[in-house]
Amino acid sequence: MAEEVVLLDFWASPFGIRVRIALAEKGIKYENREEDLRNKSALLLQMNPVHKKIPVLIHNAKPISESLIQVQYIDEVWHDTAPLLPSDPYQKANARFWADFVDKKVLPFLLLLFDPGTNPNPTMIVQYWHKLMSKTLLHGMQMYELGSKIWRTKGEEQATAKKGFIESLKLLEEQLGDKTYFGGENLGYLDIALVPFYCWFYAYEKCGDFSIEAECPKLIAWVKRCMQKESVANSLPEQEKVYQLVLQAKKILGIE
Amino acid sequence: MAEEVVLLDFWASPFGIRVRIALAEKGIKYENREEDLRNKSALLLQMNPVHKKIPVLIHNAKPISESLIQVQYIDEVWHDTAPLLPSDPYQKANARFWADFVDKKVLPFLLLLFDPGTNPNPTMIVQYWHKLMSKTLLHGMQMYELGSKIWRTKGEEQATAKKGFIESLKLLEEQLGDKTYFGGENLGYLDIALVPFYCWFYAYEKCGDFSIEAECPKLIAWVKRCMQKESVANSLPEQEKVYQLVLQAKKILGIE
Repeated sequence: MAEEVVLLDFWASPFGIRVRIALAEKGIKYENREEDLRNKSALLLQMNPVHKKIPVLIHNAKPISESLIQVQYIDEVWHDTAPLLPSDPYQKANARFWADFVDKKVLPFLLLLFDPGTNPNPTMIVQYWHKLMSKTLLHGMQMYELGSKIWRTKGEEQATAKKGFIESLKLLEEQLGDKTYFGGENLGYLDIALVPFYCWFYAYEKCGDFSIEAECPKLIAWVKRCMQKESVANSLPEQEKVYQLVLQAKKILGIE
Repeated sequence: MAEEVVLLDFWASPFGIRVRIALAEKGIKYENREEDLRNKSALLLQMNPVHKKIPVLIHNAKPISESLIQVQYIDEVWHDTAPLLPSDPYQKANARFWADFVDKKVLPFLLLLFDPGTNPNPTMIVQYWHKLMSKTLLHGMQMYELGSKIWRTKGEEQATAKKGFIESLKLLEEQLGDKTYFGGENLGYLDIALVPFYCWFYAYEKCGDFSIEAECPKLIAWVKRCMQKESVANSLPEQEKVYQLVLQAKKILGIE
């Protein structure tokens, strides 16, 4: 059977980028369909009726949702090329633990930099993300409510957010140790879970007025090694373009 | 090598129960060490330094954390007995999607029944859970702050919480269809992810003044099939005992 692979995606989504990298690592040809998140396609609503979120991977007409589950699916279906998860169950559990850590303890602090008034709460923040990119973006009051939660920064609170964020990154740096990639000699599951956030780093640094590289030089050295791979470099948008998206959103939301 | 399996656990934790069921399904002998969550053991802090939470599975001195990751680990290490995840990658992705759904869309609404003023936010609620069971339980002001967030019920808001909860359960009922278990003929990953919450149902029903069985008869029929299995029946505490825990916590927190 000819493989038909479609990815419903949004260019700046770290979750979409995870899937792009995994597909590129496996050398899988696919159709990338950019979604307008303010006006979601009928296909997206049909393929992910539960969460109604991108990315959705559609493989031979069957949908798979949630980026870390998608990456595991890709690894299992195309298992002969570029294995992403280790075969050893303990190492596999470890990779899963740290990928889960990225979603629970890195992502929240990242977005918290935009709003230190918010609890460091992954789900809420992912919800904001989705709201921001969805219809609510254009809805008067809700818009301002959102605005008050995102990208509002304050001295001491922001310092706390930065501290938590850097602490999480340092824990990841420890895990990396002297390895080339988290996956060892080759790019693996945890690399794919974490590296997509790099394209947002510049926006975080500008909003939080700090340098991630100064705090975590080894992690940034790892990012640079990842970026030397075509699968990664071709999947991440320019940092400047993401920063412009943030500025644009701030403007629409009426926030300085 | 002789297998040494230890589980750091807390009797009423649905997350700990998941691991207990998985180990029982595989017929693995293990030592269950009950943790005092108000005074965590040095072993727990050493074995899960990142999250400092139970359950922790320790297999031949190596720790694994996060219940869904633990269940997958158990399934991968002891793969010859009672497979929990389907071997087909698509079915596996589907089981993972719905187990993730339980954590994101069932658990939050469940605990929301205790506090309809809270956002339906899984992480925050899991944090409350852990706080409630940990030191903060005994700390003056924090205690009351927590108290105000948990088990405070209001008419209309509570109705919304119940509605969301039942909607999530109905989606799961649809997934179950006419199958014996979510895993098909045999208890599987999603069964193990969901059924531990059953021991909390009675407390939810008492606090929310409603009947889950009246709303989701097929789901409760499934629970009853699960409870006929020793692996499940022996892993879940009595509903009444959990309700007493809730009443006790309410009392300590000074909430009616």
